[in-house]
Amino acid sequence: MKPDAVDPDLDLLLERTVPVSPRAVWDAWTIPEQLVRWFAPRPWTTAACDIDLRPGGGFGTVMRSPEGEESGGVGCYLVVEDGRRLVFTDALGPGYRPNPSPFFTAEILIEPDGDGTRYRVIARHADREAKKKHEEMGFHDGWNAALDQLVEMVRGTAAS
Amino acid sequence: MKPDAVDPDLDLLLERTVPVSPRAVWDAWTIPEQLVRWFAPRPWTTAACDIDLRPGGGFGTVMRSPEGEESGGVGCYLVVEDGRRLVFTDALGPGYRPNPSPFFTAEILIEPDGDGTRYRVIARHADREAKKKHEEMGFHDGWNAALDQLVEMVRGTAAS
Repeated sequence: MKPDAVDPDLDLLLERTVPVSPRAVWDAWTIPEQLVRWFAPRPWTTAACDIDLRPGGGFGTVMRSPEGEESGGVGCYLVVEDGRRLVFTDALGPGYRPNPSPFFTAEILIEPDGDGTRYRVIARHADREAKKKHEEMGFHDGWNAALDQLVEMVRGTAAS
Repeated sequence: MKPDAVDPDLDLLLERTVPVSPRAVWDAWTIPEQLVRWFAPRPWTTAACDIDLRPGGGFGTVMRSPEGEESGGVGCYLVVEDGRRLVFTDALGPGYRPNPSPFFTAEILIEPDGDGTRYRVIARHADREAKKKHEEMGFHDGWNAALDQLVEMVRGTAAS
């Protein structure tokens, strides 16, 4: 299987072209001070973010609702290809240690497209049930909204 | 945390010096025709083995008891450093897709030691319960017996 192959039975795909550069998208994903500004779909916010950007390094986020509810965890980077490919999973934590409740692996693919970026997110699941659950949790709305926020931030029009 | 750090609460460690070369140990782990000759502690045998030796590639084995009971699964290579370090996990399958029932990540460390090899296996678990279960399943006896079989195979004294 090619690294970026998508299995329609098990994977969810978000694919868009956005009017910011590949480097800006990469930085938004990998610099904590930037990630906290766009990662959680509003009205949630990203209360904390820990990035150890190397294969086996931890990737942790804490998202917070207006009511103070928190959601998050610590996953593990698997592939870090500067400027173009980032793979991480919640099935493992830092140092590749298994996490008790695996849910998905995310692959972020970033390519130049004219003056902008072809942006793809592939979310891979263990089975159809997990894929369906992720879809029903609002994968498409959530990741699209977050991407809109990323673009807003990069273009300097973010409210914060 | 250093890549080879061991957490005594969560990890199991096997450490031995064996009288075969680092290259021979690496080959025994990475060439299917060799792996099937030593991997399953006798009287179990290794009925099948699938090795896609790259980060994200699948690592599958099927072990069989004399009564025909089978045990195995397909994991994923995470780190492949030729001749010295191999990391794989059953928390993920090929292409980094999560597996439903993660149990452990294995790190195999191979270093020259005189004419032989300092050989370390670190098995990392999500929690103390998983570590204890692995210990009670016979981690130390099983991995020591398999290593004896590896050395026998390399030295050409294997029964098969």
